[in-house]
Amino acid sequence: MTGALTIVGLGPGPADWIVPEASAVLDAASDIVGYQSYLDRVPQRPGQQRHGSDNRAEITRARHALAMATEGRRVAVVSGGDPGVFAMAAAVFEAIEAGEAAWRRLDVMVVPGISAMQAAAARLGAPLGHDFCAISLSDNLKPWDVVERRLHAAAEADFVIALFNPASRARPENIHLAFQQLRLCKLATTPVAFARAIGRPDERIVLTRLGDADPATADMSTLVLIGSSETRFIERPGRPPWLLTPRSYGVGR
Amino acid sequence: MTGALTIVGLGPGPADWIVPEASAVLDAASDIVGYQSYLDRVPQRPGQQRHGSDNRAEITRARHALAMATEGRRVAVVSGGDPGVFAMAAAVFEAIEAGEAAWRRLDVMVVPGISAMQAAAARLGAPLGHDFCAISLSDNLKPWDVVERRLHAAAEADFVIALFNPASRARPENIHLAFQQLRLCKLATTPVAFARAIGRPDERIVLTRLGDADPATADMSTLVLIGSSETRFIERPGRPPWLLTPRSYGVGR
Repeated sequence: MTGALTIVGLGPGPADWIVPEASAVLDAASDIVGYQSYLDRVPQRPGQQRHGSDNRAEITRARHALAMATEGRRVAVVSGGDPGVFAMAAAVFEAIEAGEAAWRRLDVMVVPGISAMQAAAARLGAPLGHDFCAISLSDNLKPWDVVERRLHAAAEADFVIALFNPASRARPENIHLAFQQLRLCKLATTPVAFARAIGRPDERIVLTRLGDADPATADMSTLVLIGSSETRFIERPGRPPWLLTPRSYGVGR
Repeated sequence: MTGALTIVGLGPGPADWIVPEASAVLDAASDIVGYQSYLDRVPQRPGQQRHGSDNRAEITRARHALAMATEGRRVAVVSGGDPGVFAMAAAVFEAIEAGEAAWRRLDVMVVPGISAMQAAAARLGAPLGHDFCAISLSDNLKPWDVVERRLHAAAEADFVIALFNPASRARPENIHLAFQQLRLCKLATTPVAFARAIGRPDERIVLTRLGDADPATADMSTLVLIGSSETRFIERPGRPPWLLTPRSYGVGR
């Protein structure tokens, strides 16, 4: 029997945002590997082994999953959001690249999921209707000057900017530094959304503008969206406004 | 009775990449509105009205859907991929912004979906494991110099670049112009993937490098991914390589 490893996206939280292919893979797996909070979201099946770990142990977790697959087991590695976007897919392929030759013969599949960015966009209206970029503010794995260079280029390009991992206990200052920089090169009236834990019971949305935004609003569960020069609020009676980045750009200006 | 309008993402094609919330909304809708090819993917329900239209009639379609919702109907607007990413969500909110005051009182919801970019990433390995941007090459709705400015900034920032709408019958030259420009500012060895119709029967993947890539490989159903300076192939025996952009960037260089 040949083992297989599938990296599965659980989306931002709710079960009705998990694609059926992901559920089928989880049902059929002999072993499920992942950060314990993600494992807790997966219904328990009889005979299925679960291997929970700490959130920062991605490479160890990936190597463990690959070793089990090589033994012929059907392993599912769970990831929040989309495993391809700042998540477990890269960790698994990094482990393969640096690991045993046998791992390159495995069937490795990725099942996509809804990312926090898409969940936030869905709740807010249509902020990603035009060109955008996604930047992780974590500087565990890259020098901070790379983040700064990218923020600058993103502002120059007038992309809508999605910031992942805006704040961690170890680096609470990153989101403050990012806002400092964006304020130098974008208008104070630029719409900003802090979208926290979208789809989960503790969901919270704060809509503001770059000049007024308090970066401390962002915690580890927050996706921060910063508009382009075309992004705007659509006011409506008695409810928070929608956020729109139209499909057209600078047409007729 | 109050009407409602929900914009639903059908993903790139396969039913097992449609989130359960989308299926539930489609089951409960009185009216389904969309481009005819997307409507054809939705199982027919008795008593449900279908309103198909041409792919380029987004705003007309959005206005029609809003008018029906205002009459108290439960309207689902279907979109390929994720409705929030270069798709129908922006068209609907543009119509609301420019339209009748009553439309701002409607319950308008967006159900996210798997975008072509995510489907491509899942099939290829982990090309979006690090910071990236998404640019539509359609210049229907923006001047071409904006596209050029963004490509330049994306190369400066060393983002992984996802190109949507790389070629249309009206503008087959856009993808050629984009590659011309990227070749001026990125290494010829940069990995490139043309991911066509991922998840559909006519799925096709071409892996190459920027210096060798033939832009004519891209058609209207193709998502083009261009790597960052860290993106690389992981070779494996007897099968096409995986594509990886590692989570770390420039660490230790």
